[in-house]
Amino acid sequence: MIGRLNHVAIAVRDLSVASEVYRSTLGAQVSAPEALPEHGVTVVFITLPNTKIELLEPLGSDSPIAKFLEKNPDGGIHHICYEVADIGAARDQLVSKGARVLGSGEPKIGAHGKPVLFLHPKDFLGALVELEQA
Amino acid sequence: MIGRLNHVAIAVRDLSVASEVYRSTLGAQVSAPEALPEHGVTVVFITLPNTKIELLEPLGSDSPIAKFLEKNPDGGIHHICYEVADIGAARDQLVSKGARVLGSGEPKIGAHGKPVLFLHPKDFLGALVELEQA
Repeated sequence: MIGRLNHVAIAVRDLSVASEVYRSTLGAQVSAPEALPEHGVTVVFITLPNTKIELLEPLGSDSPIAKFLEKNPDGGIHHICYEVADIGAARDQLVSKGARVLGSGEPKIGAHGKPVLFLHPKDFLGALVELEQA
Repeated sequence: MIGRLNHVAIAVRDLSVASEVYRSTLGAQVSAPEALPEHGVTVVFITLPNTKIELLEPLGSDSPIAKFLEKNPDGGIHHICYEVADIGAARDQLVSKGARVLGSGEPKIGAHGKPVLFLHPKDFLGALVELEQA
């Protein structure tokens, strides 16, 4: 069912410091920051030859990554995103196998303008997994 | 400097349970387990179209992932591995920018038979980063 690894997301406290780590220290191609108020984050995209890294900084008072950064003050790897061909079919198949979908269970439009879902880390080896319809 | 994302590693308590999550629930292609006593882990490789996921289970009494699993009993995303063309040159460049290399600072032969290094998470946004010579 899962296809490409769409991205790995790293939560950070300070996006400009974080961007500089990837740009200057690791020599990677880093985009300009993009505020996504509806997702509670500001994001930069790091383009690698085969996938992307996303750096996420909290935006607003109700950011979904605020708690993670309280527990991980240096930042840390927040989630991994796999592509699926049909997110509704993927969701139904996962739920039938006992996996839990976070939130309402209905796909939302994600940071790339495509439908996404998040799966419960306890059902996926402690890793927060996002599914994105490719 | 960094090239492809070689893999994302997820530390798990039970490799057979974890393999089944990826094989049966997520419908991915999962290899047979491979014991790597010199690295203190048993590993399975999950082949995605553009990269790999590695599931790591502790092997032996001195496994480098034992502490991580004490803190994260459900498992969790342990590290990300970027490819570099020349690991010695990459190491020298990183050290000149103030980044810390774990261990002796000398590359070791990693799970894929290629030279690898690990970088200090505090210098890389809280994420443990492995570099592998491609």
